[in-house]
Amino acid sequence: MKQIIETLSKFGIQLLGSSYDNAIEYLKSLIELDVIDIPSGTELGTWTVPDEWVAKEAWVKFNGEKIIEYKNDLSLMVYSAPFQGMVNRDELKKHLYINKERPDAIPYEYSFYEKKWGFCLPANKVFDAEGKDLLPEGEYEVFVDTEFKPGVMKIGVHTIKGKTDKEILLFAHLDHPYQANDNLSGVACLTDLAHRIKDKYNHTIKIVFCPETIGSIGYALTQDISKVDFMIAVDICGNDGDPTVQWAFEDTSRLNKIAHLALMEGEESFNMNRFRASIGSDEYVFNDPEIGIPGLLITRHPYDQYHTSEDTIDIISEEKIKLTQNLIENIIRIYEEDFIPVRKFKAPLFRSKYKVQTPVKDINLTLDYFIYNINGERWLSEITDLSRMNWRFATDLINKLKEDELVINSLSDTCKGEKCKITRKKS
Amino acid sequence: MKQIIETLSKFGIQLLGSSYDNAIEYLKSLIELDVIDIPSGTELGTWTVPDEWVAKEAWVKFNGEKIIEYKNDLSLMVYSAPFQGMVNRDELKKHLYINKERPDAIPYEYSFYEKKWGFCLPANKVFDAEGKDLLPEGEYEVFVDTEFKPGVMKIGVHTIKGKTDKEILLFAHLDHPYQANDNLSGVACLTDLAHRIKDKYNHTIKIVFCPETIGSIGYALTQDISKVDFMIAVDICGNDGDPTVQWAFEDTSRLNKIAHLALMEGEESFNMNRFRASIGSDEYVFNDPEIGIPGLLITRHPYDQYHTSEDTIDIISEEKIKLTQNLIENIIRIYEEDFIPVRKFKAPLFRSKYKVQTPVKDINLTLDYFIYNINGERWLSEITDLSRMNWRFATDLINKLKEDELVINSLSDTCKGEKCKITRKKS
Amino acid sequence: MKQIIETLSKFGIQLLGSSYDNAIEYLKSLIELDVIDIPSGTELGTWTVPDEWVAKEAWVKFNGEKIIEYKNDLSLMVYSAPFQGMVNRDELKKHLYINKERPDAIPYEYSFYEKKWGFCLPANKVFDAEGKDLLPEGEYEVFVDTEFKPGVMKIGVHTIKGKTDKEILLFAHLDHPYQANDNLSGVACLTDLAHRIKDKYNHTIKIVFCPETIGSIGYALTQDISKVDFMIAVDICGNDGDPTVQWAFEDTSRLNKIAHLALMEGEESFNMNRFRASIGSDEYVFNDPEIGIPGLLITRHPYDQYHTSEDTIDIISEEKIKLTQNLIENIIRIYEEDFIPVRKFKAPLFRSKYKVQTPVKDINLTLDYFIYNINGERWLSEITDLSRMNWRFATDLINKLKEDELVINSLSDTCKGEKCKITRKKS
Repeated sequence: MKQIIETLSKFGIQLLGSSYDNAIEYLKSLIELDVIDIPSGTELGTWTVPDEWVAKEAWVKFNGEKIIEYKNDLSLMVYSAPFQGMVNRDELKKHLYINKERPDAIPYEYSFYEKKWGFCLPANKVFDAEGKDLLPEGEYEVFVDTEFKPGVMKIGVHTIKGKTDKEILLFAHLDHPYQANDNLSGVACLTDLAHRIKDKYNHTIKIVFCPETIGSIGYALTQDISKVDFMIAVDICGNDGDPTVQWAFEDTSRLNKIAHLALMEGEESFNMNRFRASIGSDEYVFNDPEIGIPGLLITRHPYDQYHTSEDTIDIISEEKIKLTQNLIENIIRIYEEDFIPVRKFKAPLFRSKYKVQTPVKDINLTLDYFIYNINGERWLSEITDLSRMNWRFATDLINKLKEDELVINSLSDTCKGEKCKITRKKS
Repeated sequence: MKQIIETLSKFGIQLLGSSYDNAIEYLKSLIELDVIDIPSGTELGTWTVPDEWVAKEAWVKFNGEKIIEYKNDLSLMVYSAPFQGMVNRDELKKHLYINKERPDAIPYEYSFYEKKWGFCLPANKVFDAEGKDLLPEGEYEVFVDTEFKPGVMKIGVHTIKGKTDKEILLFAHLDHPYQANDNLSGVACLTDLAHRIKDKYNHTIKIVFCPETIGSIGYALTQDISKVDFMIAVDICGNDGDPTVQWAFEDTSRLNKIAHLALMEGEESFNMNRFRASIGSDEYVFNDPEIGIPGLLITRHPYDQYHTSEDTIDIISEEKIKLTQNLIENIIRIYEEDFIPVRKFKAPLFRSKYKVQTPVKDINLTLDYFIYNINGERWLSEITDLSRMNWRFATDLINKLKEDELVINSLSDTCKGEKCKITRKKS
Repeated sequence: MKQIIETLSKFGIQLLGSSYDNAIEYLKSLIELDVIDIPSGTELGTWTVPDEWVAKEAWVKFNGEKIIEYKNDLSLMVYSAPFQGMVNRDELKKHLYINKERPDAIPYEYSFYEKKWGFCLPANKVFDAEGKDLLPEGEYEVFVDTEFKPGVMKIGVHTIKGKTDKEILLFAHLDHPYQANDNLSGVACLTDLAHRIKDKYNHTIKIVFCPETIGSIGYALTQDISKVDFMIAVDICGNDGDPTVQWAFEDTSRLNKIAHLALMEGEESFNMNRFRASIGSDEYVFNDPEIGIPGLLITRHPYDQYHTSEDTIDIISEEKIKLTQNLIENIIRIYEEDFIPVRKFKAPLFRSKYKVQTPVKDINLTLDYFIYNINGERWLSEITDLSRMNWRFATDLINKLKEDELVINSLSDTCKGEKCKITRKKS
């Protein structure tokens, strides 16, 4: 997977245009991709697909000498407007972006919807250690030759047919230039996962690569999403931090409980957050109740190199990406294993017969609550979550009870309970 | 408004009788008033309208010298029963009322329903600084010449016609004698407000002056209240403290959320309390679920001079009464501006297009929740409250979205949600 | 009642068999008992009624000398499997049960469903004060001559006919050998209570003695329980501690609120716990939502002598058992007094007329909430609980209001509210 990241991180991928198209072509060489084209200028809800941005040349001169020069890197703010003219130091500084916490790094900045120009550079080129100006007073010559022109936003979709036509969508945004972890790590993760999960699940799983936000809006508003059960956005998954799952918008969503059970199956410590509490990616769009698809974000954010030139292949751990893949698979698996159990026996379970008797009173008690909470309305994931048990233990026990026909599947696969549905508006 | 308070505070207004009738006549000289007559002895629910009380003469003598004498002030307990006889010091002291925290002040005491006699006097006339008796031992001659006689309880109603026949009731009790802030401040506040809000609101607004509690019971049980949306009691609003709004009985009432939004529009810091948590006035009656009209109390209680002879015009600030009027108007205005929005667009709002994009992630997030919480069932006030936003920001944004037809009013003006109704029992 | 306990504690009552049968015969000499027979081997839900266990002889010898010998006491683990052979000290110790916290006492141990052997003895015979082994190294001769044979589990039922056929079940388990407080105290409590409550209540009350858990499973799964409103298990009620009531499984059950009100009527301080939070007895079975009978546990657990040879008549207080009886009766009485009040008056209650006016604002406020919470849907117990009032005060007031026809009983005796039902599944 590091190979994929290394290759793509040289492309400097923008929202649309040749860099992005090249990235799609490269991914096509690895997995089959259908590409959805949406021309710039297309209105999507309250949004408009932006034009392609072409940066030809950009520099700042002082006394005739180039002190900043754009060389297909982060030094020109992404989507900078063209500009040419003399500015004094104070005016120039309004257009300079630095990151004081990482003074050697060039920050990644963009202005997709507000037309302005800017340069990004290491903080230590602007201020010395005492915070004094390194740029001399005087007049600076600025030259920004960029162009906005109609283009086509492309969304790459890899489809893994399942036994049913119910869908799960997995999203990774492809667009931040020269950012390995954010989010070529996610792109590599899903590209590789495509091979791993072939013919493995009942759901038809679609892996989607697109520009963040505007791409997922494009997908949600132009594609048939009526069969989608849920989606996951994978954003920033190769660094050394613990995984965080951000919940679907509805706090009580069954999907949030499943995510929790899946995290508990993993080997890492983890965090959970409410919808968008820390950061947001493409799950932001699908969780709109008017769209009605619950979506999780899986991320290892925050990390120090975030949105800088130091977000490189060097901070990526293949192992962490694999653990992220495991987490995604655990979510899918638990979702597919989940069902609404109906109990066919009365009175407490004879624990020792089912080898779940323990000398620890609290554990036995947990089990008693677990059994009594099976009411033919709750999903197994909810009962397990209510009882603070883990999924493996719960399913092992339930399967033993199923063998003896002490528990059966509810005929209805939709929940009758208040909070146990993964709700879907018909689109 | 201070003129109104000053004039009325000389009247020594009792629950009913000439002092009260004079007050009504005086108010009639300022604003038009319809007067509802309810004879004493009338049964209202479990209550009975009390008789008129006439205090003719009352004093306490020691060794032939008057040591307490009633002179149309607070020194005779209001509704004291008649009494004549000799009592020793200990017996006398059972009938003396003092306020140790304000030793120079005569407390305001009353006994409307239990027949007994009493005198009120400054604590420093009864005890010295060390707490020793100032009254000598011995026999005291007590003379209380009072009379209870049939009378008529009067309720003054000023009606401001609105565009619709839906009503809002604003109550101020008129009865505590010689108490400027409690509640001639409220009476002055609403009398003046009557001019301010003429032809301003859709609701027909009725301003009601009456004896506290028994007066509002009289109104609620004898008048047509089927068109009343909500009521506000204004009690104690001229002193220097912050405003408190006490909630309607149902904690989840939409009116409580509107009150909160209205308080946030004001210039003062403020408090909110549950129904009757601190004090109660006429909102007490209307909040009865059997009556079914949600009611708020607006007050600046507590204050040091409460229920003493020191509650005079000197502690009243015209500015504070004006701020109270603003608060009342904000509640009415927000109530009338409130509606159930229906969203006609999918996916997140393109914030920068609507000039609500900020560099502060938390604010953007607040806005995202705001948009996603618009579900065609919740009132705007509830969505605003849920998102911890303020009303002005919310309505500005919603109005911009309405211009673009991205949001429309729900056809139904009644809420489908669980908690969003201002519930009304049919009376 | 101490006589009953003293007599029965000599029987060494096992789950079934002659000791148990003798106990039933003895109880029959005190109160009428119907006996339900369930043969061992009967399958009940996921459980099987165990065989009768007969202990003939058991000892451990070292160097030919008996160092442990079973003499119809706790020294042989209850339901020990037969065994004969030589074991070394380490192996022996795996089969010895001690209680380090009570080093002079023989612990009560059992293994009903796992077949193994064991001896119980005072800790101070196994370890000295420094924790060093008192048993010498070497070979020990072990002889356990026990037998498992088909038997009959017996459930004794005493029926107190009421005016209706609606039932209340009172359970005390009869089986722990040589344990006075656990639970011959409960057996004595209910045996005596049978006389006290004759012809006193509307409900038909059944007092049930059985082996713990398996006995109540037997009752629940073989008897007609369709008329049972609720049950109470009485387990450990003679020691000096405060009573604890453990709730029915559904936290919001009306029965839990009634239990709270009943505890407040008593003279003791008390505890409440969620279902099975501390210990469990026969209420465990009935609370199964598939069985659907809410059940309380009344207990004075924990106590130091629990499950040891020191649980004797010496720690039993007749007074504590009587207080337990009072508590049971209070629960029954409040349950029978409970009804859904409908209010026939509007506006606040005129408190002084009903002699409930107090000079304490908070108490008056409590009363106001009480009145306003009467909505024709809530049970009186729930309103009383909501208002944090006590039952006597609430019923006194309500009865006065009923006399004046200001409150009437709801025609329906089933509650319309969400949480106010004592829910019953039809069995």
